[in-house]
Amino acid sequence: MAQAPVLTPQATDFPRWYQDVITKAELADNGPVRGTMVIRPYAYAIWERMQAEVDARIKAAGAENAYFPLFIPESYLTREADHVEGFSPELAVVTVAGGKELEEPVVIRPTSETVIGEFMAKWVQSYRDLPLRLNQWANVVRWEMRTRIFLRTSEFLWQEGHTAHASQQDAHRYARSILDDVYADFMEGELAVPVLRGIKTRRERFAGAINTFACEAMMRDGKALQMGTSHELGQNFARAFDIGFLDETGARQLCWTTSWGVSTRMMGGMIMCHGDDAGLRVPPRVAGTQVVVLVVRDDDAGTVSAAARDLVAQLAGSGVRVRLDADVSKAFGRRATDWELKGVPVRIELGPRDLEAGDATVVRRDQSGKSVLPLAELPARVAGLLAEIQTALFEDAAARLRGATADVSSVADAREAAATGFARMPFRAVGESGEDELAEAALTVRCLQTADGGVPTDEHDEDLVAIIGRSY
Amino acid sequence: MAQAPVLTPQATDFPRWYQDVITKAELADNGPVRGTMVIRPYAYAIWERMQAEVDARIKAAGAENAYFPLFIPESYLTREADHVEGFSPELAVVTVAGGKELEEPVVIRPTSETVIGEFMAKWVQSYRDLPLRLNQWANVVRWEMRTRIFLRTSEFLWQEGHTAHASQQDAHRYARSILDDVYADFMEGELAVPVLRGIKTRRERFAGAINTFACEAMMRDGKALQMGTSHELGQNFARAFDIGFLDETGARQLCWTTSWGVSTRMMGGMIMCHGDDAGLRVPPRVAGTQVVVLVVRDDDAGTVSAAARDLVAQLAGSGVRVRLDADVSKAFGRRATDWELKGVPVRIELGPRDLEAGDATVVRRDQSGKSVLPLAELPARVAGLLAEIQTALFEDAAARLRGATADVSSVADAREAAATGFARMPFRAVGESGEDELAEAALTVRCLQTADGGVPTDEHDEDLVAIIGRSY
Repeated sequence: MAQAPVLTPQATDFPRWYQDVITKAELADNGPVRGTMVIRPYAYAIWERMQAEVDARIKAAGAENAYFPLFIPESYLTREADHVEGFSPELAVVTVAGGKELEEPVVIRPTSETVIGEFMAKWVQSYRDLPLRLNQWANVVRWEMRTRIFLRTSEFLWQEGHTAHASQQDAHRYARSILDDVYADFMEGELAVPVLRGIKTRRERFAGAINTFACEAMMRDGKALQMGTSHELGQNFARAFDIGFLDETGARQLCWTTSWGVSTRMMGGMIMCHGDDAGLRVPPRVAGTQVVVLVVRDDDAGTVSAAARDLVAQLAGSGVRVRLDADVSKAFGRRATDWELKGVPVRIELGPRDLEAGDATVVRRDQSGKSVLPLAELPARVAGLLAEIQTALFEDAAARLRGATADVSSVADAREAAATGFARMPFRAVGESGEDELAEAALTVRCLQTADGGVPTDEHDEDLVAIIGRSY
Repeated sequence: MAQAPVLTPQATDFPRWYQDVITKAELADNGPVRGTMVIRPYAYAIWERMQAEVDARIKAAGAENAYFPLFIPESYLTREADHVEGFSPELAVVTVAGGKELEEPVVIRPTSETVIGEFMAKWVQSYRDLPLRLNQWANVVRWEMRTRIFLRTSEFLWQEGHTAHASQQDAHRYARSILDDVYADFMEGELAVPVLRGIKTRRERFAGAINTFACEAMMRDGKALQMGTSHELGQNFARAFDIGFLDETGARQLCWTTSWGVSTRMMGGMIMCHGDDAGLRVPPRVAGTQVVVLVVRDDDAGTVSAAARDLVAQLAGSGVRVRLDADVSKAFGRRATDWELKGVPVRIELGPRDLEAGDATVVRRDQSGKSVLPLAELPARVAGLLAEIQTALFEDAAARLRGATADVSSVADAREAAATGFARMPFRAVGESGEDELAEAALTVRCLQTADGGVPTDEHDEDLVAIIGRSY
């Protein structure tokens, strides 16, 4: 389609491209209160698919869903020293309710460690009650200075898991299994986003954690996006909220807790990892609409629309999420471009000539060019096509990640390499002063890995490798 | 089981029974901030089933899910006069955020008509954009003076649908179809709660509506619970937010909007409609756990536990939501009582003697007594049992509703009849002064119906019948 591009090209201005695609593909709008967002139906359907897939993995990991209040007494936040320091500048505070000034202001949860800690302390009595594994899907509020839809908003949607364990080893193992079996498995398998797994440096850790595991992805501008984190909280929150248990010998012990979350930020990651100058490319497994059947134009008898409806019914019957576009009052080219912009994985175009030949034109969003296939074969072939597209998007992103990651040996070289991608270097050659130096260039150690790209146990592991990059 | 009752009997003190069952069945706790609640996993699993069933019906009604911000500028609330008057006393207001006093305080949504109205105005241009049908699942906040878990809490979870239409007739039809095909169908079909459908009197209408449809259920103490409402908002919000469209002739018109919602309050309805002195009775279709398999006691070889695990696997394989209780370290009687308290529809008890005879003991939560069935037949019979229990719970509640509804002809008689159930009388014999008189006795017209129990078009219908009762 040789039309003027509706989006700013990525190479010209990536942030502008991102804003354009969010608006033009009808994904989201800015809310009326600063930093908030309105998630529109096309994007929300994708978020619902993400939620369902993450939720299934969380349940398989043995956690149960629950719901804790939006409002937290201000005093709870102050009980864990690092935690209050980390979140204080971002809190939204309700001071008036029911027409009166409140005696104790209440904070809107920026995360729920504190209130969940309070209830874990009530619910856990004995070692038999452990591990206690809870998760909630909720909105949280962090008053951010510079916001960007999906990536950093004052209010966002997420899941936050909170668990209590009898031993540090069990807490460690669980936090790690969330990283691997829930987050990385979902991101790579469903979102088709390859992620680097590792631990955060002391400087980048969650406020109150003793160890933070993270999944980091590379966007198409070479910048990193932290897609999800899983924290070992040690006994910090257990001490602050007195979460204890009687062990097998009847002795009282403090629990070891974890917390972990992924959010609507992953929508931003999906957009920026796969999108191209023509718009979104939504991975089939999370697409709200996997296939769109377009009537190119119709005859007076409506023969083409009838055949298109028939195809849609067949596809829907075999479990494909399919939509019909038979609105021939709009120009075909415009409609095709719109679906391309929206990133629907497969577009099936049906016109009078196709129909006469018993064919349909099939366009894969991940490839250029079109192919003509026998109409009768489509119902059987679409599932295979969707699987191929899913794999192709992952491979494409993985190749980009490999290609834009450079091994370096000094902080100066890392600064150069990280201008276009990730730099990888021994962490001992970075050191604390190196992290300061990187920060001056707006770079951070995204995560620490073992020499072979694995996940270290903690910061005391030998031969840690630092992955350095710019980030969102 | 001849044990001391763990719950206050319903006849002794129904509110106390309600509080007891919520605590002892581990459904919910009070949150630390007044009026808030913590929904525990056992209850949340039921809520998730409710959500899934309501959501499927909403999607079938053509609405799409989206998400709008928690925060609403204070000025939005004031644009629709009745609306601001209705909600002002209940608002929670954020005045401080990010460490600073806000220039314009922001209100936490008590409902989202106003913010959604603002965006509808942007998104709707032409008659082709109509109807616009949106829904969101969200938390809302109404600062209540007297709160009770699930029934009236400062923060609650709900779905709120918001639609815009080209004509009053279309809006009316849609609001009505939500009442019938989404709410009543869900409540009767899934929750097994029979509901009376009707419209609200002018006095009881939603703030800003021109007509409110409602589903009213009777609890086991004879009081009414409003389970869900669907509002025709006329052009009130369209006028306030300028939601307009160009019609086929190119003339600009105002839209007609609707809104409708059900909330975690339905959890309270499910508890109080079905629960008895032994605890909850959860309808199988929304039960997180439909069947529990209890190992009564085991031999040294663990033969009984192995058979129980096998049965659980077979049931799970055929789609039954089943749980194993093989914790023989706790007394069997105590465990049986606990599952009864939790209202699991079917309990299957397996002991060494049962196993030897190739049998299992089956206990239906909705009936007294036990039956002994061949173990091998259970996998094939459980689905049928669950369906029978679902029907029995509905019939039981429907018989109670019929039995506790009296036809009367004066407000004085209505006051008497409503002491134990519902009174039904011609609305013209009530009148506005009658509604005042009822209010003095803490009674309200729950809804207006046609003479044959149908749903009136609006308050101008002839021969309206008032359903009068005490209510939650």
